Amino acid sequence: MAEDLNTEEIHEEDSYALDRETVEPVLVALRDGDSEALIEALEPVHPADIADLLEQVDEDTRLRLVQLYGKEFDGDILSELNESVRESVIEALHPEVLADAVRELDTDDVVDLIEDLDEPQQEIILDALAITDRAAVEQSLSYPEESAGRLMQRELVAAPEHWDVGHLIDHMRAHEDLPDQFYHVILVDPRMRPTGYVTLGKIMASPRTTALSEITEDSFRTIPVTQDEGDVAYAFNQYHLISAPVVDEDDRLVGVITIDDAMIILDEEHEEDILRLAGVGEGSLNDRVSETVRARLPWLAVNLGTAIIASLVIALFEDVIAGFVALAVLMPIVASMGGNAGTQSLTVAVRAIATKDLTSSNVWRVIRREAAVGFINGAVFAIVMGIVGIIWFGSPMLGAVIAAAMVINLMVAGLAGVLVPVVLDKFNVDPALASGTFVTTVTDVVGFFAFLGLAGIVLL
Amino acid sequence: MAEDLNTEEIHEEDSYALDRETVEPVLVALRDGDSEALIEALEPVHPADIADLLEQVDEDTRLRLVQLYGKEFDGDILSELNESVRESVIEALHPEVLADAVRELDTDDVVDLIEDLDEPQQEIILDALAITDRAAVEQSLSYPEESAGRLMQRELVAAPEHWDVGHLIDHMRAHEDLPDQFYHVILVDPRMRPTGYVTLGKIMASPRTTALSEITEDSFRTIPVTQDEGDVAYAFNQYHLISAPVVDEDDRLVGVITIDDAMIILDEEHEEDILRLAGVGEGSLNDRVSETVRARLPWLAVNLGTAIIASLVIALFEDVIAGFVALAVLMPIVASMGGNAGTQSLTVAVRAIATKDLTSSNVWRVIRREAAVGFINGAVFAIVMGIVGIIWFGSPMLGAVIAAAMVINLMVAGLAGVLVPVVLDKFNVDPALASGTFVTTVTDVVGFFAFLGLAGIVLL
Repeated sequence: MAEDLNTEEIHEEDSYALDRETVEPVLVALRDGDSEALIEALEPVHPADIADLLEQVDEDTRLRLVQLYGKEFDGDILSELNESVRESVIEALHPEVLADAVRELDTDDVVDLIEDLDEPQQEIILDALAITDRAAVEQSLSYPEESAGRLMQRELVAAPEHWDVGHLIDHMRAHEDLPDQFYHVILVDPRMRPTGYVTLGKIMASPRTTALSEITEDSFRTIPVTQDEGDVAYAFNQYHLISAPVVDEDDRLVGVITIDDAMIILDEEHEEDILRLAGVGEGSLNDRVSETVRARLPWLAVNLGTAIIASLVIALFEDVIAGFVALAVLMPIVASMGGNAGTQSLTVAVRAIATKDLTSSNVWRVIRREAAVGFINGAVFAIVMGIVGIIWFGSPMLGAVIAAAMVINLMVAGLAGVLVPVVLDKFNVDPALASGTFVTTVTDVVGFFAFLGLAGIVLL
Repeated sequence: MAEDLNTEEIHEEDSYALDRETVEPVLVALRDGDSEALIEALEPVHPADIADLLEQVDEDTRLRLVQLYGKEFDGDILSELNESVRESVIEALHPEVLADAVRELDTDDVVDLIEDLDEPQQEIILDALAITDRAAVEQSLSYPEESAGRLMQRELVAAPEHWDVGHLIDHMRAHEDLPDQFYHVILVDPRMRPTGYVTLGKIMASPRTTALSEITEDSFRTIPVTQDEGDVAYAFNQYHLISAPVVDEDDRLVGVITIDDAMIILDEEHEEDILRLAGVGEGSLNDRVSETVRARLPWLAVNLGTAIIASLVIALFEDVIAGFVALAVLMPIVASMGGNAGTQSLTVAVRAIATKDLTSSNVWRVIRREAAVGFINGAVFAIVMGIVGIIWFGSPMLGAVIAAAMVINLMVAGLAGVLVPVVLDKFNVDPALASGTFVTTVTDVVGFFAFLGLAGIVLL
């Protein structure tokens, strides 16, 4: 016990990151090829942390660890590994070890494990399962990808809605095959349609004669089996659900989703949004160089296209620049400020769309607001840059031109920052995915056009 | 029941966003000043959705709704409101209604509600509480902001570690004051130090003679009361915790944190990261224009500083540009590609630091990897831009210059994208907050310098 608390404390100090005390003995054991020492070193380490370790070491070390760890390799480690590492680990595992590891897992974890694998690897794992488990996994796989049906577990406890507490307790205690983890009992009508749910805590706290229908939770909601997992996660977060029954198209109970699964999805959706906003489709530090190049190249290619469009705008004003080279020095400032202001607006708008806080009822007010913010910020930096223009280049006219261009571009940035994601969302394109490119194209083009165009009129 | 299912279905179709059917009758009731119709219209709406509605309407409508809704106004709505709207709603509420609303809430919700309020408003709410609740809230507020102590609830069920299942069940059923929501029983030693926990489900599923110590969960971890809430959320997500006991410095049990609270924190931390990466410190669509201007202006000012640095680099090469204006047309392309590639690398690195996947054990491998990715992407776009340079401007030398600058800048972008966040993190600066500015400054300066410098050597 005292020992347990000590390891806890070490974990806390550097806040759960893998520390030297954990990693060092593992590496020593690997160097010595000492499988007993390895098993001992990994004994106190959580499977999620072992997975992190496997992700962080290089490929040789990883494969050596998998081989030396042998039969101790746990199914949970596989579940925790990210996709690109998972495939290589599965290949490296002895078929028997793999089969044992997979058989330990709950069927919903198996589904999560194999849905991203290639078919040959899927087959190996399916073959390792008991027949009933295999059937359950295959049925889950029959639901659309990223749907509630893939996420739910089949193990659940349901009771007729007219039962009382005593009846339910006697029933539960008489049954040995209750799921390991459950927090609610789902009430169903005679046609197996969920009508409410009761927490185990309330069941414990209520007299035996209490009708179950009297102690149901307020926050009850059912989830359609085909619902997108992102919406499932949103519902859990918005309505503070702990678990929710999943129903088929006839509203019959087919499974249950619990908050821990919803939390994982919420985390993944956020991760996806962040990476998409940054123009990285998918990606982790463990992907191979070739995978990363393939993932990032298309986004850079799109960016090249928009940069060339901006260059074409500049090319329109080659004569102006030739007559007044200071313009070439200052023009990136206007574009850069517009790009930044646009990114600010679009990020807030993309998040508001994701959290369903930007709807038809407030979109016009939001657009007016962003335009106002852009105008005010533009005015502030117009004054600053006007002064910079005058001091640096001694030209009040140049100061006035950059000031005017700044106001125009920051207002346009605010407008584009909201309009682009809203319009993309209307056309069912993920605004996180594509907004950035559109908005910076707009701010580059408007920025260069306004600055160089005004300069052409005023200065020549 | 059938009716319930129908409203559920409407919610599902547009995936939980507020729909016209919900909002329309509310607006009609407000227009007519019909408080009964308003109460009826809001009856089926979840407090979280009422809060969203209050956030989305304009200020006049919001205050009218608060007044007309009167005594029906629920404490949960206050909890769900975001900060800027919450303050104006609290001001608008009748003091008696506010007191009633607050008294309905659990103490941890009250803490969450008032910690961001001004002191006069805090006082009003504290005065509304019963004395014991007030003491509990004030004790929570004595823990550091954003710590586990603020997040935890005091209501919990603990049992001596040597009890058996039968003993525990009899004890629980004899006590009427069990918390409404609990999922685990925490086992403690004689000095109130937690030693494990047992799920209610397992208690239900086990024979009465089973020792509690035999059915504890593997994933048991204690949380120090001063731990940062972001680390708490990480621990829940990493180790799939459902609830975790919170301990003081002597390892004694002082409270419990449940996964639903951890999920809210995880969501907030992500939101913060996204907004920081985009150079928006904080912000929602409901902030006033003046608040938004104040929030965004400093970031734009920093960006202006870096843009001027880039301009100074360009100014070094004014003569080169004057001699060859095509350079002014093409130079933003090199800088823009570098900025994009840098943002890609830094976003992946910032995320990896946040998820503790980028540590001293793999940082050098990651840096080599990013440099390699940058080199390959740079080479690809070097070829493309070399060809564009030749076709557009008929100058193979110009094509060669832009190609070389592209390779240099994309390699530097990859390196800076990892190094900058890693170094900031070492100095305890949030890498999400500041990396973007540093990286784009580097890529702008290197991009302009490489392109114009090489052009000066080769073309003149």
